[in-house]
Amino acid sequence: MISVEDHAERVRKLVEPVLTRLRSGEDAEQPALDDALGRVLARDVLSPVDLPLFRNSQMDGYAVGSADVATLPVTLPVVGELAAGGTATPAFVPGTALRVMTGAPVPPGADVVVPVEETDTLEWPERGLTGQSVTIHRAGPSGRYVRERGSDLRTGELLAPAGVRLAPRHLGALAAAGVRSVPVRRRLRVAVLTTGAELIGAGDGRADDAPAAGKIFDANLTSLVAAVHECGAEVVLAERSGDDTAEFAGLLARATSAADLVLTSGGISRGAYEVVRETTEPLGGSIVHVGMQPGRPQATALVDGVPVLSFPGNPVSTQVSFLVFLRPLLREAAGLPALQPVTGALTTAVESPEGKRQFLRGILSPDGTVTTVAGPSSHLVAAMARANALIEIPTQTTSLAAGANVRVWIL
Amino acid sequence: MISVEDHAERVRKLVEPVLTRLRSGEDAEQPALDDALGRVLARDVLSPVDLPLFRNSQMDGYAVGSADVATLPVTLPVVGELAAGGTATPAFVPGTALRVMTGAPVPPGADVVVPVEETDTLEWPERGLTGQSVTIHRAGPSGRYVRERGSDLRTGELLAPAGVRLAPRHLGALAAAGVRSVPVRRRLRVAVLTTGAELIGAGDGRADDAPAAGKIFDANLTSLVAAVHECGAEVVLAERSGDDTAEFAGLLARATSAADLVLTSGGISRGAYEVVRETTEPLGGSIVHVGMQPGRPQATALVDGVPVLSFPGNPVSTQVSFLVFLRPLLREAAGLPALQPVTGALTTAVESPEGKRQFLRGILSPDGTVTTVAGPSSHLVAAMARANALIEIPTQTTSLAAGANVRVWIL
Repeated sequence: MISVEDHAERVRKLVEPVLTRLRSGEDAEQPALDDALGRVLARDVLSPVDLPLFRNSQMDGYAVGSADVATLPVTLPVVGELAAGGTATPAFVPGTALRVMTGAPVPPGADVVVPVEETDTLEWPERGLTGQSVTIHRAGPSGRYVRERGSDLRTGELLAPAGVRLAPRHLGALAAAGVRSVPVRRRLRVAVLTTGAELIGAGDGRADDAPAAGKIFDANLTSLVAAVHECGAEVVLAERSGDDTAEFAGLLARATSAADLVLTSGGISRGAYEVVRETTEPLGGSIVHVGMQPGRPQATALVDGVPVLSFPGNPVSTQVSFLVFLRPLLREAAGLPALQPVTGALTTAVESPEGKRQFLRGILSPDGTVTTVAGPSSHLVAAMARANALIEIPTQTTSLAAGANVRVWIL
Repeated sequence: MISVEDHAERVRKLVEPVLTRLRSGEDAEQPALDDALGRVLARDVLSPVDLPLFRNSQMDGYAVGSADVATLPVTLPVVGELAAGGTATPAFVPGTALRVMTGAPVPPGADVVVPVEETDTLEWPERGLTGQSVTIHRAGPSGRYVRERGSDLRTGELLAPAGVRLAPRHLGALAAAGVRSVPVRRRLRVAVLTTGAELIGAGDGRADDAPAAGKIFDANLTSLVAAVHECGAEVVLAERSGDDTAEFAGLLARATSAADLVLTSGGISRGAYEVVRETTEPLGGSIVHVGMQPGRPQATALVDGVPVLSFPGNPVSTQVSFLVFLRPLLREAAGLPALQPVTGALTTAVESPEGKRQFLRGILSPDGTVTTVAGPSSHLVAAMARANALIEIPTQTTSLAAGANVRVWIL
């Protein structure tokens, strides 16, 4: 029997080479910016331009020379207009004012923008207001309301660093710099294989869709595929295997040729017909008993150089195993923040087997109390859906009174 | 000038009818389970079956009658085998044992499963172990290690409630019940229109891709589309408009015919060439000044029955406006949890204009301190990308010393 930490470390070591390869960016992809949300930058992206691209106005108003507004009030002739997006920028002539829109280029010599509110202009919106004059009541020092070229970021400076998970604000800055596509880490490619002669998919049963005697609908293929997707990885193969070792070995070969990582469920306990064990043990894989409930048997193997992580087949065991051992690694690979447990107060007493860290399904309330959902049995898949949290009972704890504080992992 | 709360309430009222329509489920879609991760259930889904589907074994071991194991140890003949997925389930005969695998059906009469560890069985894995006998050292009361049919959930009971955002555990339970597809709320359809004669997309500039004089790359279309996607809504139109009112009005008509909600950026300040204002004000839209920085001008309209929410055009103003006014509503519509601010301690003193709630860009450190990034100017789009948080400075606060606690919204 090994501890949860020891097995987690074993899984990390098994998967680490794959994560290192992804992090190295050697297989980087180059999606268009619009397809890059949530992807992780493979390399630093430096700005190809100055931001802002040119000196421009922060306000609607008048571009003037600071020398001309040293004494106030002052009346200046308005000799031209600077419109945002205008391609012809009039030159600045000292002793005059240029009407200017927010974002419009401010020509050399004009070093202050006077907001329209600080002038005698009554009607601003209509177009064309040159050939008149403006009286300025207030003006600031040189540079006021003028955004200098490169004042946000200069050409060659870091726009977005390697390893960042691209959020809207990063994509906005990349777009502002005219970047069209970005190098992102390839997503981890995962194959999911569930095993068990009893498993069928919905619609694979009899004509009336009720399963044949002894068959059950496979919860694990669906929940594992969704869990992999939720962690930002890709599913390249998702198949169900019966209890025939040749069938499973064939699927495993397909999986290892297509994926960075293979997940399996079922077939590793001490029963007969344990196809995962029968296939991976001869290849050097090992099955361990982990001091946890659910999820006692766990297996790892390296098949054709590809890590194979095998969970027990009960649906709750499968889901809890994924959450405990693989989710942290996949989230890290996808640039997602590490999840931290919170503290909850039990509403009822709980018992727990000695020597096992128990992960009970619970409902965490906004008031910080947490209530167990159904019992600890690992087949209670509907109860797992009702839960919003896992309650962690320490290995050496065999009972806790109502009110006791426990670690809670929000689902 | 109105408060942030008042404008948020105005936006909520504008958008609420659309959200109510989505919540009603009247336009529900019915994706396959594998395409339903992260979608919001439109209606309660009741279980079409009992879970478990049939009485089955929780352990690998022997199914026996409790009367036969009342006195221990006892030796019983093993007369048959119950395999998971086996279609022929041997009947139970009192005074005998049936070898049973985890998940295999347990026939009537056999009411206890004795785990293999509690017997004299030495070699379990090989197939076929009938015709021998087993000596049982320990056995529990009637029902031990037997999972009764329907003990997790009964036919017609609630499998997943309306309004739940489907996570892997829900999909697992639905799959376990043989559900193939689920009714989910339609995603909110959003159109995004950015405005400004100065805006170009990357690659829309001159042949060498440097923008023409006075042009800038549009950050807002990219960041708003990404922000909408991040909140679980759909973007049905994303277009850039120059400062021509006919061009904008044409795009707005396309937007209102395709979308539940239209977002615009730019064109609402008091400058000339304000196409959003010029188009929506005659249709009853209104522009307000909100006591916040950035994001002072904000506009709302109802055009052809479709809410139009207009943000100012500076890229940081656009992003902050989205985060403050729209993100909470979109997250609610997508079944995502409400985001809560955290408290951070300022590393440096800050100043803030009176009468405006300021949202400064900041970097929140793991130690709970928060540092401003660059200045408050709303064109600093690269600085926004460097930030990981918004620092909220209250409306009436004009200065805060280093060490002061502030509300921080994690980005």
